[in-house]
Amino acid sequence: MKRDDPPLAEAGAGAGGAEPAPGQVRPEQGTHPHRLSIEGRLLEGLLNSLGDPPIRFRLWNGETVYTGSGSPVATLGITNRATLLKLVLNPELNFGEGYSEGAIAIEGDLVGLLETIYRGLSRPTYTRGHRHLVKWLHQARPNTPSASRDNIHHHYDLGNAFYELWLDAQMLYTCAYFPTPGASLEDAQVAKMDHVARKLRLRADDTVVEAGCGWGALALHLATRYGVKVRAFNISREQISYARERARALGAADRVEFIEDDYRNISGRYDAFVSVGMLEHVGVEHYEELGRVIDRSLGPDGRGLIHSIGQNRSAKLNPWIEKRIFPGAYPPTLREMMTILEPAAFSVLDVENIRLHYALTLEHWLRRFETARDRVRDMYGDVFVRTWRLYLAGSLAAFNVGKLQLFQVLFARGETNEVPWTRVHLYG
Amino acid sequence: MKRDDPPLAEAGAGAGGAEPAPGQVRPEQGTHPHRLSIEGRLLEGLLNSLGDPPIRFRLWNGETVYTGSGSPVATLGITNRATLLKLVLNPELNFGEGYSEGAIAIEGDLVGLLETIYRGLSRPTYTRGHRHLVKWLHQARPNTPSASRDNIHHHYDLGNAFYELWLDAQMLYTCAYFPTPGASLEDAQVAKMDHVARKLRLRADDTVVEAGCGWGALALHLATRYGVKVRAFNISREQISYARERARALGAADRVEFIEDDYRNISGRYDAFVSVGMLEHVGVEHYEELGRVIDRSLGPDGRGLIHSIGQNRSAKLNPWIEKRIFPGAYPPTLREMMTILEPAAFSVLDVENIRLHYALTLEHWLRRFETARDRVRDMYGDVFVRTWRLYLAGSLAAFNVGKLQLFQVLFARGETNEVPWTRVHLYG
Repeated sequence: MKRDDPPLAEAGAGAGGAEPAPGQVRPEQGTHPHRLSIEGRLLEGLLNSLGDPPIRFRLWNGETVYTGSGSPVATLGITNRATLLKLVLNPELNFGEGYSEGAIAIEGDLVGLLETIYRGLSRPTYTRGHRHLVKWLHQARPNTPSASRDNIHHHYDLGNAFYELWLDAQMLYTCAYFPTPGASLEDAQVAKMDHVARKLRLRADDTVVEAGCGWGALALHLATRYGVKVRAFNISREQISYARERARALGAADRVEFIEDDYRNISGRYDAFVSVGMLEHVGVEHYEELGRVIDRSLGPDGRGLIHSIGQNRSAKLNPWIEKRIFPGAYPPTLREMMTILEPAAFSVLDVENIRLHYALTLEHWLRRFETARDRVRDMYGDVFVRTWRLYLAGSLAAFNVGKLQLFQVLFARGETNEVPWTRVHLYG
Repeated sequence: MKRDDPPLAEAGAGAGGAEPAPGQVRPEQGTHPHRLSIEGRLLEGLLNSLGDPPIRFRLWNGETVYTGSGSPVATLGITNRATLLKLVLNPELNFGEGYSEGAIAIEGDLVGLLETIYRGLSRPTYTRGHRHLVKWLHQARPNTPSASRDNIHHHYDLGNAFYELWLDAQMLYTCAYFPTPGASLEDAQVAKMDHVARKLRLRADDTVVEAGCGWGALALHLATRYGVKVRAFNISREQISYARERARALGAADRVEFIEDDYRNISGRYDAFVSVGMLEHVGVEHYEELGRVIDRSLGPDGRGLIHSIGQNRSAKLNPWIEKRIFPGAYPPTLREMMTILEPAAFSVLDVENIRLHYALTLEHWLRRFETARDRVRDMYGDVFVRTWRLYLAGSLAAFNVGKLQLFQVLFARGETNEVPWTRVHLYG
């Protein structure tokens, strides 16, 4: 599906809501239904249900539709009738499909446009009409051990070289923790690992098991800075192989064991359990199973931390993200996360929501991605560039508008009194 | 049911696990089933299911039963056959009943004994046998508005003079926050109010609504120290009248309005919602209703804090506490608390569990209560003294062994980005 970019498709994220050049689209404020084609009226109906967002549409026939008030955030060009019909039928899936393929072109502020759309999608006028339809159209993929392997391979085995283009030097692909908003991404990723280590009160020679270790940065940081022993699990072959190489290079191979296996196969007893950015791939139907894994892995003074994208209210992941980026993924509510910990009566000690830190992390990633755009295009082509731009910009927008959250949940055995007296030690 | 204390009943909490004087009970380590009466064997069956706790029993006929190993924590004297049968049938209810009436006498460490019992009650060998029976015997009271009024009157309208004997100077009857374990109770209650105010980021002239305000200390502290305006609701007539008097004495009556009404009748819009120690009385079946009250009470940048006793796993409140102390009360799990916040998509920002602070708060209360014991006896009699001693000691034990938790849940509207960047400001 590689094709040339249409003229408007290269507008970068964050380019601002500038007015389109005169003549490109007619600068109407408000439209007149009787003058619109049937396609224009269909689109207008969708926009009404979305609360009339400040987005201007330009159709293939030159017609423009704008139901918002004030200046538009962006202009969205639709290059053919089929794309419009798909968009009206299932905007949550087909906006992404159309943008990736180049059949939808954006001029203006992509992140601002996506924030506007996310706000509209949560309106009752929209959800009433579309909820059942979307539910019927969309079925998330399962997360059995073999399906998990496929799902994870789909995303994380794209090639380490690709991720090296835009992640930080240590390759952390999860929300950073910025002590101040001006901190660098590299510093914020280190600060995140230290924040996790302090929450877990790690001491030299503690044993730690990590479920879903990415490229190994956290396991290596904990081993080299805190003197703990780590067994780190991951089912992405490319990531594990990268992590093992780094362990050798750092001379840490005796303290960190990287295991290419599913979290369900974790064995042994440990002082601490940690999982950063894996729960999104577990699936709610496997939470009790994950809870049993944690229960059998922790000793009597064991403690654990789960860091995960979440939501305020239960809703499916955006279907385009689920289809194109993260098959089988789901961001849980805090209530749903509790079903991991409740059966074994773990005691929740601390929950911190650092949603805005993920928005800022994504700003850094998106900026670096745009800088590396030409190299990414050479590696994977235009559709890939647009797909990833939309994924990064859409995630940034989702954290910014509060559609997604980032929860760090710290817990301990219910019976132990070996818990910190206050949280002052986190801010010493 | 006023009667003289039996010889062993006056043993204070925390008196240590001293051996009983020789001759009072036979110092056997382990018993021999064939030598026990049928009552002794019944008791032994109960003790086995509780994991053979280190508690020695002395029956009315001089027989002793001890199935534990090592030194007993305490000796429990049972003065008649009916009390033993009731204890075996439903120990969670009838231990308290027997102790209050004086038919069960304790020699040794009351808190240690209760911790041992709570640990035993959570064992699978115990719960399998007794769960269904207890469920059938026990039905919690409802919390409709009129039932709530009765339930609250039962406890909080005992007379302010009674609570003044053992609470801190400002009459806070909720978990304190001890910056260090050595802080005084008065300082720790002030620190708790400041901790809550910082979490809510209160600024001068913010409007605050408080659901369940006790004797008014928090509302008055927030108004006088933080310059906010507070409307505080409570259905306990004695507490409201006390709170109004204090507002007048402090010259704060223009900034704090105390309203004798149910939380369901809260009206108006506020910058912050706060509720400290009320949720325990709301009942899970009313959580969604409470969520609607909070939703309609908060403006677009509104934030809220709920401070409540909780549990790691859903289980009924101890039936004796529910019957004699807190009719209609229930400590929720964090999962259950989320049913308040999820329907309106509130964003949980921070959960802190300060369980051990409640154990320490209760140590202070129990010590003060024992100091004031003779005055309490003059006011309400012996049964009351034993009832309240057991309630305070049992609560202390429950927090110490992790049967109860104390959650502070901070939340904000899902759409607002007016949330703190980190939690450093709490520890400045």
